[in-house]
Amino acid sequence: DVVPTCERYAVRRLPFGRLADGDVAFFERLMPGRVVTGEEEVKPFNVDWLKSVRGCSQLVLKPQTTAEVSQVLRYCYERNLAVNPQGGNTGLVGGSVPVFDEIILSTALMNQVISFDKVSGILVCQAGCVLERLSEYLEEQGFIMPLDLGAKGSCHIGGNVATNAGGLRLLRYGSLRGTVLGLEVVLADGSALDCLTSLRKDNTGYDLKQLFIGSEGTLGVITAVSILCPQKPKAVNVAFLGCPSFAKVLETFTTCRAMLGEILSAYEFMDEKCMELVERHLKLSSPVADSPFYVLIETSGSNSTHDEEKLSNFLEQAMASGMVTDGTVATDDKKIKVLWSLRERITEALTHEGYVYKYDISLPVGKLYDLVTDMRARLGQSAKNVVGYGHLGDGNLHLNITADSYSHSLLDAIEPFVYEWTARCSGSISAEHGLGFKKKQFIQYSKPREAVVLMQQFKAMLDPKGILNPYKTLPSA
Amino acid sequence: DVVPTCERYAVRRLPFGRLADGDVAFFERLMPGRVVTGEEEVKPFNVDWLKSVRGCSQLVLKPQTTAEVSQVLRYCYERNLAVNPQGGNTGLVGGSVPVFDEIILSTALMNQVISFDKVSGILVCQAGCVLERLSEYLEEQGFIMPLDLGAKGSCHIGGNVATNAGGLRLLRYGSLRGTVLGLEVVLADGSALDCLTSLRKDNTGYDLKQLFIGSEGTLGVITAVSILCPQKPKAVNVAFLGCPSFAKVLETFTTCRAMLGEILSAYEFMDEKCMELVERHLKLSSPVADSPFYVLIETSGSNSTHDEEKLSNFLEQAMASGMVTDGTVATDDKKIKVLWSLRERITEALTHEGYVYKYDISLPVGKLYDLVTDMRARLGQSAKNVVGYGHLGDGNLHLNITADSYSHSLLDAIEPFVYEWTARCSGSISAEHGLGFKKKQFIQYSKPREAVVLMQQFKAMLDPKGILNPYKTLPSA
Repeated sequence: DVVPTCERYAVRRLPFGRLADGDVAFFERLMPGRVVTGEEEVKPFNVDWLKSVRGCSQLVLKPQTTAEVSQVLRYCYERNLAVNPQGGNTGLVGGSVPVFDEIILSTALMNQVISFDKVSGILVCQAGCVLERLSEYLEEQGFIMPLDLGAKGSCHIGGNVATNAGGLRLLRYGSLRGTVLGLEVVLADGSALDCLTSLRKDNTGYDLKQLFIGSEGTLGVITAVSILCPQKPKAVNVAFLGCPSFAKVLETFTTCRAMLGEILSAYEFMDEKCMELVERHLKLSSPVADSPFYVLIETSGSNSTHDEEKLSNFLEQAMASGMVTDGTVATDDKKIKVLWSLRERITEALTHEGYVYKYDISLPVGKLYDLVTDMRARLGQSAKNVVGYGHLGDGNLHLNITADSYSHSLLDAIEPFVYEWTARCSGSISAEHGLGFKKKQFIQYSKPREAVVLMQQFKAMLDPKGILNPYKTLPSA
Repeated sequence: DVVPTCERYAVRRLPFGRLADGDVAFFERLMPGRVVTGEEEVKPFNVDWLKSVRGCSQLVLKPQTTAEVSQVLRYCYERNLAVNPQGGNTGLVGGSVPVFDEIILSTALMNQVISFDKVSGILVCQAGCVLERLSEYLEEQGFIMPLDLGAKGSCHIGGNVATNAGGLRLLRYGSLRGTVLGLEVVLADGSALDCLTSLRKDNTGYDLKQLFIGSEGTLGVITAVSILCPQKPKAVNVAFLGCPSFAKVLETFTTCRAMLGEILSAYEFMDEKCMELVERHLKLSSPVADSPFYVLIETSGSNSTHDEEKLSNFLEQAMASGMVTDGTVATDDKKIKVLWSLRERITEALTHEGYVYKYDISLPVGKLYDLVTDMRARLGQSAKNVVGYGHLGDGNLHLNITADSYSHSLLDAIEPFVYEWTARCSGSISAEHGLGFKKKQFIQYSKPREAVVLMQQFKAMLDPKGILNPYKTLPSA
């Protein structure tokens, strides 16, 4: 069983109220049949997907409407009860589960599409819509979501926005800070903030919604999202390539960015160790000859003839110059999915190895893999695997280290080394995963003290009692 | 001469300190030779580009470094002296000039490029760099700025960011909220906030820089910017088309978005009245037969053969189906500039007509031109011109009304009618121009009361004495 977070990390509970029978009765009256109690029933909400952290909440609430979220928070604020907002619980930094006995506010039943406009491509929906369901809904109408990620089958759009999820399409469609047009948010005291506009441009005052994007549920609970969706590309191609060195991975990137230009929609890389793990644990097979590195390139465009011509021109040059030693191309949906799964299922394959230490780092692309090499040399036999993969086109490395089980001494060998290394390159210690519970004490490696102080002031202003997702994102004041 | 703003609008001066000889002496010691005094010398900084508002500042400061900006603000904060940050002074809502005697803090001498990385396309520069100079600098290296606008020859990048400028390329490259990666900001009390990172992804805490983007200098003074720049497209084409009705303008848009897809980089429209004005006042000549509406379509791509094929397929269909009645295409730089100037110089042509009432509205595209038609009918002979043009692809209408001179009664006929009309369609009363001085009292047409209250709390937290760009953006508390 997973060790409770408060024990493993020796955290002290803050002086919030304790759940009483009267509280549960109140919630039962508010949302009959949507109040979950009982250790076994609550357990899946207490443990994260990685089985790395565990809270001991006794209560899960499943509101269906913004009004219900308001009433819950008004009550909790009054009673000084801490609240842990939870979407699909796919977070990787312990941000989505309680640390102690926080009430879990699940968006699972807030899963309605509110509107979709086919002229503008603007989707408005409740926070609990599952990303993959939204993708399917949009594809029927000739559009796609501007983000895509491995956890799409479970993650909620509200959680995506609350964590400013990046993922596989950021290279092409940009971050949620540009594509999210509006939000509805319930603040700590239960008041609702309606910034749910559906306009591409609106310069009337400060852009309040930005503060909630990426705040990991610590400043408010996102209840609805308005988001700009691109048209579904008429042609999609995926190339899966083997490269002889990381230098060639970089050269391949620069070349394909220039030659594929506006149709390039993803540039992902993985090392040979990643391939070994997906082959071993998931029985997938590599479509190309063994290579030290693999690259997945996706193009999305409006004219298949043009796109295929651009792609084959590029591949010709890449093979001729020795940047790429072997490769395969897919144009049909089924083969595309197979190639993507090699990259997308690395996270899953890693969990089969035991305990996984996960790092999600932004670095100048040229230095991206040096961190993996340095870490491998540093840890030697004490780690089972040290692997690197990620969104190279965005300068985003996923560094993963596995061991049979959690070990304090291995953690001490990794941290703060990994953060110091990153800070020396002016990188970010969390590119897309956020800080959650596990990374919050390392924020200073990527943000100056004055910035952290200002963040704490925002937190104090918006949530003066600190009831929203406590112990997360910011170091204690 | 322009009537002083405080007289025309009957504003009351807030109880800030008054400039004394000792203050000027202090600044002279701090930045010798870069302190401007004297009514004539200060005048160009007191009056906006439209000659619609006028302050009566007696002092302009021209710092060269962030440290100097810090020292200026620390001193002003201490002395309770109000400060008006100013970039290129090209704003259209009276946000860039003082209302009373605020000290003008000009970024004119903060015009250094700090770094440019050719692999990532990330530019870091001081706030006072002129947009067009940056464009030229980047083009030499094979890149472009992610924004472009008519005022590019004068506007500063710091001002662009402070006002969240939209412009002509937003349709393709998205808003500054996505492309600005980092900011350096000096706060009201003189403390510097360094969020000047150069990473595409960074989820370590709240994204503080977003609060300063679009805050019009009321929360802090932007001193440096880090921005992601796209590669320079290898092929650019511009089509200038005549359409028989606004319905056909919309149909043309939907068709070209589908057929041009990822290479579409601008979709602009203007009505026949706009064409008449640029012809009359600027001696430009229309390249196509007289039409009720004109459309400018730009494509930017990496393969000229592919792009021209896409464009000609689209044009063939548009002409055949009667969406477009006449058209011309440009592929060489010179002709492209000529076509763009028809659209870009409308603002300039309008100023030749006398006083211009400017409205910058976001609306659902289908309703975009109804506002112009309704306004024309409402005003009848009392207005000289009622014209509509703008960034149709972004749902952004520029509605302009001219008269020989400013008139209170005409203003009363326009406002609040225009704002009420917009609010009924859930539009924005300021798509890209901001609120500045002239629009701040209308914020409630686009934002709920709770949002405005929250904005006021942010202002009070970051600038407790209210010295930064007072009388702007937010209605008085």
